[in-house]
Amino acid sequence: MFAASVITLFPQMFPGPLGASLAGRAAEDGVWSLQAVDLRQFGVGKHKRVDDTPAGGGPGMVMRADVLAAAVDAAATPDDPRPRLLMSARGVPADQAMIRQWAAGPGVVIVCGRFEGVDERIVAARRLEEVSIGDFVLSGGEPAAIALLDAMVRLLPGVMGNERSAGEESHEAGLLEYPQYTAPAQFEGEAVPDVLRSGDHGRINAWRRERAEQLTRRRRPDLWAKFRGASGEKES
Amino acid sequence: MFAASVITLFPQMFPGPLGASLAGRAAEDGVWSLQAVDLRQFGVGKHKRVDDTPAGGGPGMVMRADVLAAAVDAAATPDDPRPRLLMSARGVPADQAMIRQWAAGPGVVIVCGRFEGVDERIVAARRLEEVSIGDFVLSGGEPAAIALLDAMVRLLPGVMGNERSAGEESHEAGLLEYPQYTAPAQFEGEAVPDVLRSGDHGRINAWRRERAEQLTRRRRPDLWAKFRGASGEKES
Repeated sequence: MFAASVITLFPQMFPGPLGASLAGRAAEDGVWSLQAVDLRQFGVGKHKRVDDTPAGGGPGMVMRADVLAAAVDAAATPDDPRPRLLMSARGVPADQAMIRQWAAGPGVVIVCGRFEGVDERIVAARRLEEVSIGDFVLSGGEPAAIALLDAMVRLLPGVMGNERSAGEESHEAGLLEYPQYTAPAQFEGEAVPDVLRSGDHGRINAWRRERAEQLTRRRRPDLWAKFRGASGEKES
Repeated sequence: MFAASVITLFPQMFPGPLGASLAGRAAEDGVWSLQAVDLRQFGVGKHKRVDDTPAGGGPGMVMRADVLAAAVDAAATPDDPRPRLLMSARGVPADQAMIRQWAAGPGVVIVCGRFEGVDERIVAARRLEEVSIGDFVLSGGEPAAIALLDAMVRLLPGVMGNERSAGEESHEAGLLEYPQYTAPAQFEGEAVPDVLRSGDHGRINAWRRERAEQLTRRRRPDLWAKFRGASGEKES
């Protein structure tokens, strides 16, 4: 079973959306488990403090390394093979390859930081990988943890059956997904493109490929450059 | 009041994590409101179908344009000034500038698609902006909607007071955040760097700037290139 442990000041946020739909059913089926570890329990002193002012000054509060270390140690023994992720706006942006790698392992330990920051010393001391879900700032790591877990759980054996989504195939191929159409054939005067109703799978695939390339080039020049680079390597 | 409407097959996922902590308190204080619109209500036929097989073949199911249109029309009149976002793995990646712009407006309407896709015709017909939170595939748009709303709500007037987080300042300056430290002064043999205890704010700022630049260069060459480009323009 894929075991997720989430260290958070807001254990009541979990499972949250992960309790419904695909992830909720998968948990009921015993495919994965979710443990929310209440960071407050590990706070120091009478008031169970978990943070303090930044050394050197500056806005916000910084989470204490000793408090985080105690929580990580309670969630994972030193020989626990699960990767330990720290949700952080300055982390490496998660991508589908990383999600796939985590989903193929025994589980993950996720530390939800305040986004004002955590004491830097915890990162090396507990071998945390700093991971981001995008270049924007959340109130805390919890929504990021939920998004990453959702992405992992749908890849676990049995959760989606053998069905692979076009979006996933698309992101693995390095292109954005081609446009999709379904019933009704006419919607507010717009018809499903003729080619998709032709039954000619060669033409359909060529059309989809061309549209996926067009969209990627226009909307995500960064992905397009990578895609071209990868294709070039293969060809040479 | 900032008004968020979320169109979803899983209204029970909301407010979810947005009901606690900063966003939960802000909703109680009347700073923002959240309406979850049940897409199933707008399904067609006896079984309230919301999706169908992709025209032209392929894996997964595609959400119907007519069903989505009915839900969008119920959530927002044609003259509703709120931007309409479609959560999609092929969307434009959200960044802090976009979050800030949405947070400054009257609210947002968010359509949570299945990530297998929605009928392309809905995008133009209802002027949806396709937005992504990263290059990975979710089971649905709901976790992405929650992350974006969390990021917007913390920017609403009064929610954070005048406090601005270092992470935010950092992302706006175009650099990743410098490392943070706090009490205790010693943690497992590692001390807070001397410079941060010097009281010399000039040295502290220079050290932080240098560390932020180092980290950005190493971890996010894409941001570093943009940052250098922007600095170059200012200098010339």
